[in-house]
Amino acid sequence: MFDFTLDGTAGLARAGTLTLPHGPVRTPAFMPVGTHAVVRGLSAGDVRRTGAQIILGNTYHLHLRPGEAVIQAMGGLHRFTTWDRPMLTDSGGFQVFSLEGLRRIEEHGVEFQSHIDGTLRTLTPERATEIQWQLGADIAMAFDHVVPGQASFAAACDGMERTLRWLDRCKAKHEELAGRMESGEDGKAVPQGDATFPLPRFPAYPQTLWPIIQGGIHDALRLRSLEGTLERGPWTGIAIGGLSVGEPKSVMHRVIELLTPALPPSTPRYLMGVGFPPDLLEGIARGIDLFDCVAATRNGRHGTAWLPTGRLNVRGATLKDSTAPLDPTCDCETCTTYPRGYLRHLFVVEDILGLRLVSIHNVRFLVRLGEEARTRILDGTFDDWSRSWLGRYYAGGE
Amino acid sequence: MFDFTLDGTAGLARAGTLTLPHGPVRTPAFMPVGTHAVVRGLSAGDVRRTGAQIILGNTYHLHLRPGEAVIQAMGGLHRFTTWDRPMLTDSGGFQVFSLEGLRRIEEHGVEFQSHIDGTLRTLTPERATEIQWQLGADIAMAFDHVVPGQASFAAACDGMERTLRWLDRCKAKHEELAGRMESGEDGKAVPQGDATFPLPRFPAYPQTLWPIIQGGIHDALRLRSLEGTLERGPWTGIAIGGLSVGEPKSVMHRVIELLTPALPPSTPRYLMGVGFPPDLLEGIARGIDLFDCVAATRNGRHGTAWLPTGRLNVRGATLKDSTAPLDPTCDCETCTTYPRGYLRHLFVVEDILGLRLVSIHNVRFLVRLGEEARTRILDGTFDDWSRSWLGRYYAGGE
Repeated sequence: MFDFTLDGTAGLARAGTLTLPHGPVRTPAFMPVGTHAVVRGLSAGDVRRTGAQIILGNTYHLHLRPGEAVIQAMGGLHRFTTWDRPMLTDSGGFQVFSLEGLRRIEEHGVEFQSHIDGTLRTLTPERATEIQWQLGADIAMAFDHVVPGQASFAAACDGMERTLRWLDRCKAKHEELAGRMESGEDGKAVPQGDATFPLPRFPAYPQTLWPIIQGGIHDALRLRSLEGTLERGPWTGIAIGGLSVGEPKSVMHRVIELLTPALPPSTPRYLMGVGFPPDLLEGIARGIDLFDCVAATRNGRHGTAWLPTGRLNVRGATLKDSTAPLDPTCDCETCTTYPRGYLRHLFVVEDILGLRLVSIHNVRFLVRLGEEARTRILDGTFDDWSRSWLGRYYAGGE
Repeated sequence: MFDFTLDGTAGLARAGTLTLPHGPVRTPAFMPVGTHAVVRGLSAGDVRRTGAQIILGNTYHLHLRPGEAVIQAMGGLHRFTTWDRPMLTDSGGFQVFSLEGLRRIEEHGVEFQSHIDGTLRTLTPERATEIQWQLGADIAMAFDHVVPGQASFAAACDGMERTLRWLDRCKAKHEELAGRMESGEDGKAVPQGDATFPLPRFPAYPQTLWPIIQGGIHDALRLRSLEGTLERGPWTGIAIGGLSVGEPKSVMHRVIELLTPALPPSTPRYLMGVGFPPDLLEGIARGIDLFDCVAATRNGRHGTAWLPTGRLNVRGATLKDSTAPLDPTCDCETCTTYPRGYLRHLFVVEDILGLRLVSIHNVRFLVRLGEEARTRILDGTFDDWSRSWLGRYYAGGE
């Protein structure tokens, strides 16, 4: 359980297999974001058909609605959402630090105001770990102190050192919860729709905890965070956080290049909150295995489709009577079924089916990019393929 | 083609098979409404999985957006929407007569203002017939003059007589279009997604025209409309319009009872714009074969689910941590997959997946009601079953 095998490499780029309680994840892989226990606008079946192997849930949002107690009572996040493949929950750190309004950071934790009803709430490393345990994803994330992309050395250092101290507390709490876990019945398969779930154990499925490397855009801090994180290991996976938060792309690439050669090859690396299609290829080339980002569904809802030649506005008048598929190279449900003219019509008449169909395409687009990168890594053609893919995409006007 | 066979009867209730260019329709049957060439919020696959055999498109809305020329250029309404089963288009009459604002009725036709851009448009019997021909549904409806449910004898008489005169013009135009139809290639099957389409002929697939009986709530006018309609036949189907437009249910039932015994048994009867679950059973008991109504999807979008025991508000707090299916007796995708607690959560966080899942259930609920009525008619238990079904539904507080 929680094993990671390297299946092949091409330079820094890696193809691997991560084994989790709810199944394997072949990497590199894009992880769609299910903020409210739903990949916005999509059913679990829709997401399965995109080939997504793992999805992410947001602890902050799920703590507020419906609350971890409800999800635990419903049998955990998997049965609640009917998603039977692996899941990861973030820790709530990123959301809490992004909140407008009242927010007080102390060594103990963060006091914040719910964006739903204004009530005061506190998240600590222990609470974030407990909540995630109750949600019951395969992977929980440590509660971290995220700073903005342009944070000073002092501010980034403060957040990074606190993240390390909080990591000790998350780890201790996670070990305590895992120690209490009973070994009761866990085998029997229960069908639900077209998915199958093992009966849940109390309090949850086996779960692993991943740490997050912080340190802003400052190399010395990133290396210190890396060192402090590894000292507290071993880990079944390591995340790089605090990137794609306002810093230039070149800086993000530099930080990744700084870290991945120093990370244990046998540990999967997860680049949090990234990204757009080119970001995936740039990250994979630098040794990243796992990605998540809301851009696929957010763009889909706004009628922006990703194509191999760049972005396309589905509302565009030129699509009006086009019988062509949205992306002729794509094998998703949308592209193999619906003509462009119909997709445009759905946006014009404001039917929600349009949002869903373009979101499905965009998610499949990133999932497929991971799949193809994996194939190219394994057959030794990754560099050439990636260079030509990026050239074609940017030539489209990106 | 356009054949109707009676498979069995139980009193006035009938089970039949209507054969159309895109396949058979086993009756009694509920027809979901696809106003804008989409059953609101649902993909063609979603609708197919509800077991719906035929859907309705609104000529008024499709004329405005995207326009019949676009749909014809895209290969007709079937290929545009990827719906490969039978389709019916209404004539636009009901919509035009329901419009607020400018609307001028003359013998020639109706001048009205588009609710989208305010432009002045004219619909005549000939235009409505031509537009429907270009849309290419299996069944086109005659352009009718609809009056409100409480219309006076004089007003209802005027609308009814005009509907008969317009029927002559619709029929003449439809025969002219059909006469021009070429017999070119029409066999080759073209796969598109998980559906299959015959290559379209110019200008469309074979299409039939159905007349609409009007006359408001006045028995003498209804009988005169019936007589005038039959004189102009034969028809492959006959609709009853102008009901469920504000008159009491008992009046609607009386009008149906007046008409169906006088209609040819070998002709399918379509009750337009009806209805809610009990309306289907009441109509079937009185000899109706086909129904359409937006209530299934409209209720679904508002979080109201139909159950055998009446309506359920999916937002209700008691559903919060319920692992039960929405309707334990239902075989739809929603009820066999998602727990009630998750459906409620989707409405609370306002994810569009919730609207879709409850709409799917409600459509399946009506489709299944038609299927079960058919079984009960064929095995001779319709009356008892219907009585007990209605008793349980009304006992739920309806």
